[in-house]
Formats: sequence, structure tokens, C-alpha cells
Amino acid sequence: MTSELSLIEALRGIAGSPAARGLMDDAAVLEFGGEKLVLTLDTLVESVHFLPDDPPSSIAWKLVAVNASDLSAKGAEPVGCLYSHALGDDAWDRAFLDGLAEACAHFRLPLLGGDTVRMPEGAPRSFSLTALGRAAARAPSRTDAKPGERVWVSGTIGDSGLGLAVLSGREAAPEHAEWLTTRYRCPCPETRLGPALAPWVSAMMDVSDGLLIDAQRMADASGAALTISAESVPLSAAFRATTGDDLDARLMAMTAGDDYGLLFTAAPEHTMRIREIAAALDCEVSAIGTVGAGSGLSLHYRDQPVPLPATLGYRH
Amino acid sequence: MTSELSLIEALRGIAGSPAARGLMDDAAVLEFGGEKLVLTLDTLVESVHFLPDDPPSSIAWKLVAVNASDLSAKGAEPVGCLYSHALGDDAWDRAFLDGLAEACAHFRLPLLGGDTVRMPEGAPRSFSLTALGRAAARAPSRTDAKPGERVWVSGTIGDSGLGLAVLSGREAAPEHAEWLTTRYRCPCPETRLGPALAPWVSAMMDVSDGLLIDAQRMADASGAALTISAESVPLSAAFRATTGDDLDARLMAMTAGDDYGLLFTAAPEHTMRIREIAAALDCEVSAIGTVGAGSGLSLHYRDQPVPLPATLGYRH
Repeated sequence: MTSELSLIEALRGIAGSPAARGLMDDAAVLEFGGEKLVLTLDTLVESVHFLPDDPPSSIAWKLVAVNASDLSAKGAEPVGCLYSHALGDDAWDRAFLDGLAEACAHFRLPLLGGDTVRMPEGAPRSFSLTALGRAAARAPSRTDAKPGERVWVSGTIGDSGLGLAVLSGREAAPEHAEWLTTRYRCPCPETRLGPALAPWVSAMMDVSDGLLIDAQRMADASGAALTISAESVPLSAAFRATTGDDLDARLMAMTAGDDYGLLFTAAPEHTMRIREIAAALDCEVSAIGTVGAGSGLSLHYRDQPVPLPATLGYRH
Repeated sequence: MTSELSLIEALRGIAGSPAARGLMDDAAVLEFGGEKLVLTLDTLVESVHFLPDDPPSSIAWKLVAVNASDLSAKGAEPVGCLYSHALGDDAWDRAFLDGLAEACAHFRLPLLGGDTVRMPEGAPRSFSLTALGRAAARAPSRTDAKPGERVWVSGTIGDSGLGLAVLSGREAAPEHAEWLTTRYRCPCPETRLGPALAPWVSAMMDVSDGLLIDAQRMADASGAALTISAESVPLSAAFRATTGDDLDARLMAMTAGDDYGLLFTAAPEHTMRIREIAAALDCEVSAIGTVGAGSGLSLHYRDQPVPLPATLGYRH
């Protein structure tokens, strides 16, 4: 199978428009009518991005949430969405639409159109959604991390990945199990955070495939070195109660996908403002590292360098 | 399986934005930055919208062409596209990208972004593309056919459907077979026609599922009666040479999908202008019927009413 990376390399050859941002970013940013139109498209495939027995309403929720997260990461206010629906049986489809309606309302992404398609018998379902947003003056790219800046992340890391592990049989206390699996099935990023932070950050992207792999992508795209302090990575109480809080648990959190927090860098003088903006939205933000000259990703734990794990996150 | 119709009914409940046009039209039309942003999303699924052994470059071409056709039908100039790629083997994907690059250039739809997804083993491929366009003052809807207007169609009808039949074993002379199958695999609508016609037409849509089913949809959406004269429906020389030119052949043409011509209505006084616009773009346009008061679709052949066939076109 073609790797995602080699395909994207080949696609870059045909995506020469500046709006495509060299296919390096979470979203396209197009000047339209004197405004910045932000566009993102994400597809969820059964047995790849969701489990066959996930509740249909949660699959629809996730489809909207992952795209809303991309818009937020570009500092964009939501405008609307279009999606492609793979027809199934009536009860399943109705439940899916219930979740879609709820998510479109929650993430302020009114449904504008789309397509419905019949699938061959037995084919896995797949759903594509295109979300549109409007960015203010600046739509932060993942390419702009600069030496001397701090690296930040919003929310807690690893909950969704642990939720998936629980659904696959890992043990957890019942009160944590439900919270963690909900994080996997119904991620709920605070999408007002990205637009609020946009004027004060340099690089920004969402954490979708794992903190380490996404941080490495930001480092590579920026031509800078990112160093992350493993002990500063925010873990939820449910995560810590289930896995403990040693380096192994932290590595598991940092390499798990589907977090949908924001990863961003900012000059140290914006620290207070960033904390105030997050507090006003009742969001947690954590300074987890620094940007330096050089290239690539490094990891520290209690001031000691730690080798990067073999797998940094989820690769499609 | 849920029918497309009942799903769209349910979706209407959650697509209340005026930009969604009640999900009645080929595309969404959104005011953005003081301009009209036209958005369409179409998905092609293996064994449903294309054949497993279709050349990959032609599948990519068709994916772009069908969306470009929707933009044209709303009078929109192409702006760009995003698409979702289902990863396959390397040679197949490369050939697909070759076709994509060619089609994006031909239809002036630069690639702005998208997504790549891994599919489970053995799953049919599917590809979703979202195309963006910019409409001038008016983006004609399919809802505006008015009594007293003429019904027009561009191009010839039925070639693509006959091409599919040839690929499935129907006999045709070799010189026609190749032309017809190319019409199926690589539809090539003249997408400058829609924007040029937009100021002079009332209702407009593209013919994608079959002339009769699409004309019925226009009649229903407009709350008017459309009458089509079967003998006026334009057939290509290759079609006539392969099927003959009697009413049965014409019914076959009018119920076949994948034409991607434009179906539109216009006041009789615009007839000369419409012909001139089409001639300047080297396009064929044919007046094939009339709009009257009332509702629904009627068919005539040589001034006699003809019962509508049981199947008016392709239903997803």
C-alpha cells in the first residue's frame, strides 16, 4: 500500500496554489472576497477511524469534531460544512443523523450540503466532511515555530487513546472507563480556543495522531528543534488512575491519537495572556517544552534526555 | 437500506441555513466576504460510480469533472478543490494522481488540500471531492423554472450510459465504442458554459442521473410542469449509429446517467442570445421542451403524449 507520506509528496506536485500551504498544514487558507476562508476535509473509515460497533451518533459527532478542531487550530470561526453519507440501514442512519445534528449545533457548523452514496454490500462505511471557517487577520500555520518560544498544549493528553484501549479490553475502574471511552468516541475540543489564541501564537496545529508525532511534524515544518518535557505533559486524573504516572505511562499518552487539543508555540512574553485566554474559556493549557535552533524533536524527563519511542503516534 | 430520498428528507431538518438551499440544488451557495461562494461535494464509490477495472486516471478525471459540472450549473467559475484519497497500491495511486493533475488543470480547479485514508483490506475504494466556485450576481437554482419558458439541454444525451453498456458487453462499431466509453469514463463538460448562460437562464442544473429524472426534479423543485419533446433531445452520431433513432432508443438515452450537460429554462426572448453564447464556446444547445403551469414531467413524441418509463434515471 502507498504510504500516506509518499502520496502527499506526490500530491504536493499538483497543489501549487499558495492556499494549499504546500499540503503541510491542517487546512487550506484561501483569500475569498477579501476574507480568509479556511477549508478542511477529513474522512472517517469504519475499522480504521471508528469501530464497527461504535454508536452511530458518536461517529457522526466525531466526524464533525475532528474537522471543527482543524478549523480552530487555524484560528478560524466555524462557518458551515458539507458531508458525504454512505447509506446504510434506516435505524443506523437515523441515529447517525441525530448525532450529526447535535454536533453541527454544538460546533456551530450548519450543514450546507453534501452527497449521499450507496455502498456495495458489506463495504465498510466511510464519511467525508468538509468544514469551512473564517479566520481573522492571521490563520496560524504549523510552520512558524521559532527558537526561544514556548511549546504549549491544551487539554489533557492520551485520554482518547486509553479509551480505545479500554474498548479493546484494557481494564479500568468503571467510573474512569466511561469517561475515557467517551473521550475516544465523542471528542469535544473547545473550538473557541483557537480563534482566541490565534493573535498570540506563532505555530499552531491540532493534536490528532499523537502529541509526539504531531510535535515532530511541527518541528519539521518549521525548520526548528522542539524539546518536550515529558513530566509537563498534562494527564487527566482518569488516565493517571488507570495507567499510573511513570515515564512509560507518559510515553503511552504522548503517542496515542485522537486528542484534538491544540499544540502551539508562543513567545514567552505572551505567557500570561495565553493563560488568561484559556481560563476565560475554562480550558487547561500547559507549557510543555521549548523551541530551539536546529531541527527535529527531542524528549526530556526530569531534565534527562529520553530516547524517542520507535512509534511516535498513529500513521494512516 | 435507507433510500437516498428519505435520508435527504431527514437531512433537510438539520440543514436550515439559506446557503443549503433546502438541499434541493446541486450545490450550496454561501455569501462570504460579499461574494457568492458555491460549494459542492461528490463521492465516487468503486462498483457503484465506477468499474473496478476502470483506468485509475479516468476515475480521478471523473471525480473532478462531476464536481466541475455542478459548479458550472450554478454559474460559478472554478476556484479550487479538496479531496479525500483512499490509499491503494503505489502504481494505481500514481496513475490516479496523473489523472487528477490533468483534470484539475483542465477544469481550472487547483488542489487546495484534503485527506488520505487507509482502507480495510478488500474494501471498495471511494473518493470524495469538494469543489469551490465563485458565482457572479446570480447562481441559478433548479427551483426557478417558470411557465412560458423553454427547456434546454447542452451537449448530447445518453452517450455515457451507452458507453457503460458497451463496457458491459453491448456491441458497437469499434470507432463508436471507443468514443462512447470515453464519454462514460472521462466526461468532459464545457464548464465555461454555465457561467456564460447564468445571466439569461431561470432554472439550471446539470444532468447527472438521467435527463428525465433530472427534469422531473426540476419540475418538482420549481412547482411547474415540464414537457419534453423526445424527438428534440439531441443524440450523437455514435449513439444513433449504435441504437437507431426510434422512441425506444430515445427513452434509453433520456434515462441514462452521467451525461453532465446542463438542463436549463429560459424565457423565449433569450433564445438568440443563448444560441450565440453556446456557439461562441463551440457547444451544442437544444430546445427540448416547455414549462407550463401545473406540476410534474410529461413526455411527447411527435406531438403525441408518451407514458413516462417506469425508471426515469439512476437512483443512488
